[in-house]
Amino acid sequence: MGATLGELAVRFGCELRGDPDVFVKTVGTLPGATSDAIAFYVNPRLRRELARTRAAAVVIAAAVAADSPVPVLGSPQPHATFARIAVLLHPLPAAPAGVHPSAIVSPSARIAGSAHVGALVTVGEGTVVGERAVLGPGSVVGERVVVGDDVRLVARVTLCDEVTIGARSVLHPGTVIGADGFGFAPERGAWIKVPQIGSVRIGEDVEIGANTTVDRGAIEDTLIAEGVKIDNQVQVGHNVRIGAHTAIAGCVGIAGSATIGARCQIAGQAGIAGHLSICDDVVLTARALVVNDITEPGVYASAVPVEKFADWRRILGRLKRIDTLARKVSSLQRQAGAGVPRHDEDDA
Amino acid sequence: MGATLGELAVRFGCELRGDPDVFVKTVGTLPGATSDAIAFYVNPRLRRELARTRAAAVVIAAAVAADSPVPVLGSPQPHATFARIAVLLHPLPAAPAGVHPSAIVSPSARIAGSAHVGALVTVGEGTVVGERAVLGPGSVVGERVVVGDDVRLVARVTLCDEVTIGARSVLHPGTVIGADGFGFAPERGAWIKVPQIGSVRIGEDVEIGANTTVDRGAIEDTLIAEGVKIDNQVQVGHNVRIGAHTAIAGCVGIAGSATIGARCQIAGQAGIAGHLSICDDVVLTARALVVNDITEPGVYASAVPVEKFADWRRILGRLKRIDTLARKVSSLQRQAGAGVPRHDEDDA
Amino acid sequence: MGATLGELAVRFGCELRGDPDVFVKTVGTLPGATSDAIAFYVNPRLRRELARTRAAAVVIAAAVAADSPVPVLGSPQPHATFARIAVLLHPLPAAPAGVHPSAIVSPSARIAGSAHVGALVTVGEGTVVGERAVLGPGSVVGERVVVGDDVRLVARVTLCDEVTIGARSVLHPGTVIGADGFGFAPERGAWIKVPQIGSVRIGEDVEIGANTTVDRGAIEDTLIAEGVKIDNQVQVGHNVRIGAHTAIAGCVGIAGSATIGARCQIAGQAGIAGHLSICDDVVLTARALVVNDITEPGVYASAVPVEKFADWRRILGRLKRIDTLARKVSSLQRQAGAGVPRHDEDDA
Repeated sequence: MGATLGELAVRFGCELRGDPDVFVKTVGTLPGATSDAIAFYVNPRLRRELARTRAAAVVIAAAVAADSPVPVLGSPQPHATFARIAVLLHPLPAAPAGVHPSAIVSPSARIAGSAHVGALVTVGEGTVVGERAVLGPGSVVGERVVVGDDVRLVARVTLCDEVTIGARSVLHPGTVIGADGFGFAPERGAWIKVPQIGSVRIGEDVEIGANTTVDRGAIEDTLIAEGVKIDNQVQVGHNVRIGAHTAIAGCVGIAGSATIGARCQIAGQAGIAGHLSICDDVVLTARALVVNDITEPGVYASAVPVEKFADWRRILGRLKRIDTLARKVSSLQRQAGAGVPRHDEDDA
Repeated sequence: MGATLGELAVRFGCELRGDPDVFVKTVGTLPGATSDAIAFYVNPRLRRELARTRAAAVVIAAAVAADSPVPVLGSPQPHATFARIAVLLHPLPAAPAGVHPSAIVSPSARIAGSAHVGALVTVGEGTVVGERAVLGPGSVVGERVVVGDDVRLVARVTLCDEVTIGARSVLHPGTVIGADGFGFAPERGAWIKVPQIGSVRIGEDVEIGANTTVDRGAIEDTLIAEGVKIDNQVQVGHNVRIGAHTAIAGCVGIAGSATIGARCQIAGQAGIAGHLSICDDVVLTARALVVNDITEPGVYASAVPVEKFADWRRILGRLKRIDTLARKVSSLQRQAGAGVPRHDEDDA
Repeated sequence: MGATLGELAVRFGCELRGDPDVFVKTVGTLPGATSDAIAFYVNPRLRRELARTRAAAVVIAAAVAADSPVPVLGSPQPHATFARIAVLLHPLPAAPAGVHPSAIVSPSARIAGSAHVGALVTVGEGTVVGERAVLGPGSVVGERVVVGDDVRLVARVTLCDEVTIGARSVLHPGTVIGADGFGFAPERGAWIKVPQIGSVRIGEDVEIGANTTVDRGAIEDTLIAEGVKIDNQVQVGHNVRIGAHTAIAGCVGIAGSATIGARCQIAGQAGIAGHLSICDDVVLTARALVVNDITEPGVYASAVPVEKFADWRRILGRLKRIDTLARKVSSLQRQAGAGVPRHDEDDA
């Protein structure tokens, strides 16, 4: 597999500066790319790496193309264009159509002729698997599940009963879709399990990382809209709704019945409490904690980065006594009398 | 499956207001329930939804039953009663007794005649599986494991050697019980593995969520008492002990040798350091971090919810300089002299 | 299996105080050890337990050996010596050489004669499995994977294509090595997947806990050096590099392209942002969050432990208004004039 720079420029609508006949076979990083590899440049912090690159060509915005020491493929969206080139040069190997003899498939399941059911996969009653779908080795697919066309369960994915996965979605190993939500009612000091009779509906073009969990709804369904991207080790509680094209990084926890808008970006280890609503176009920085509705687009944060231990200990000690500090300031203000302008009335 | 309101009232000891012959088949939410569905009401924030519901009946406390526009099943514990009704209307399908031909079961394992061993399950030497227990597809059950009566491993659960699971417990997909604890001794700049020879004992009526991990003890056993409920993606370190009926939400981390009392409620993303003790009836709010013993029942918190990014940045900047701020206040106090009442002596 | 105290003293270079012919069969805790068991003592908080122990002998530092009421094995590294004794007394049962008939092994895979391929394991094309390696039940091993000598995949481990695992490494159940990194490029409001064509290389003597995930590199490889120990539920993003003998506790999240030095110790729930560098010999306390480079060895922290809910609420309220508080102090200082010594100029 490979292509000339000229072919890439035509195919992806790039402005080529350099020899169109140069043949490339792979992609690389700016410092690591060899003379048969394409790299890309978007991050100004890598300017030095750009100046030294030996790539065959760099995908780059027109405005900074002159900074490249090697041929360029000018593109308004260098990273996306690079991604498309990488797909072309490194296509996924097609999985052969058919059901591996070691798979255990219910006779009532309907598996498209072009689908691949891998080794040691189980498929339950009444499940439907679409064209060219791939059920990777060790996956467990329950009853009455709907797997869309071109879906890829990489390996060892679990889809519980009645789950629906939209076309072209990709689920990575260890992911569990449709386990029971955490629903218990208190009764005389113990917990009664509340049956979780909803399911999970996942839209088209969704990607879900390794060991992520998405719980089934208590009564109605948990919903993940088209184009959502979820990283590894994320927990999505029952009846959560996530809007289209929202991206969620690793280790995020989303409690039950939270509603998250479209095009949000949620950084790693963020937490979202249950029964609240976050509007479209919200960005949460790493480890942000949301416990109330967010009704205005924008960037939100609450994390505290590290200090040296001794310094942090002192800061923390002061924080724990901040109430005392505030009262002292109020006393000083009272003593100073009218001479001190009051900024506000917030000191109880 | 279905029942009349009259049958439900008798069976669950509810006070029925309405036509006892109305037949219901399912459960629903207040806004979503159709005329053949039972809903419930406990959360006052849903008063508006109650007023508009078209459910066949609502399970509700007597004191507010008059607010329901439809028949009511009066109950002092509406959520628990609703849960029992939901179980009646949506019973789990019984798994057929027997061992699937694709399962790999050690000849020395003892599987009760009424137990179900699913497709592609492995069961090791000397393991005992109780009556009506269900080992879902893809589960790996090690050697000398004891699986109690009516236990349900939903699918792809891993029980390592010597683990014990009490009767009626439910374990969700991806859960790993009894992996080695994180035990290493430092020696000349490297780590020596400390064999983890304890195991895990889980009591009766425990539920453990998807992709949760409970490590085996280093020497003695990790212990989870009866009625404990654990959500998804929780980590329980070696030699942790969790008291009866404690509930632990998603993404919580509990370090080794922590002891947690009975009837605690631990919200999502909380963290509990190792070698400490939390008494009975403690509530930890979302992302609370415990690093010392808690000896008094009550609610504990330490999380910081989000602000707009610019605001948070300013707050954080001030926090990091709080030490300076406190010293300034002390100077002002000294300058003001005896005229300022000292609140306490905590400003070093 | 068992040994006399005399044999243990010789084998592990301990100074024995007590009867060399006492025979021991197991290990125990100080309070739990019976008269045929070895315990160890390093933590001064367990002095009382030491005074009451009935162990056959205690592994202990010479300086405090006199505090033991029972025979001692004097050692400069009691925990490491104890670990070696525990390995001797509780050896791992050897897994039988050979491929289980239910395993699905590609004809092009090369499996060492002494390796064990367990029940329901899949091994892909071109994969190489070393001498005495153990692929536990339910593991999924992809194509062109290299599994070193004496590696142990305990059970249900997933190794994606091209991953390399160094000799003697141990991977616990549910671990996923080499899933795609979280790489997407924005384009017109949606996300384009960036193919993840790097892999993961794991060094020798690494241990990785249950349900941990290590993503493959976007272009170059994710690297984990020899002797690294990683606990359960940890997320390691694409192109992360972790230096030798670093230990990482449970629930830690490490974002893409972070570089972590050698001999670091990272406590539970810590978070490390992407594209940064942490030098050798850094200690992060529980839930520390790193968002910038750390260039100096030492201990770093940022976590806030719990207070009673009402107290925390008051502290938090004050924190959110700390800006106002700081401005008040500035006003007071201005009013007080030159009489108040300024500590610094940091109050904007």
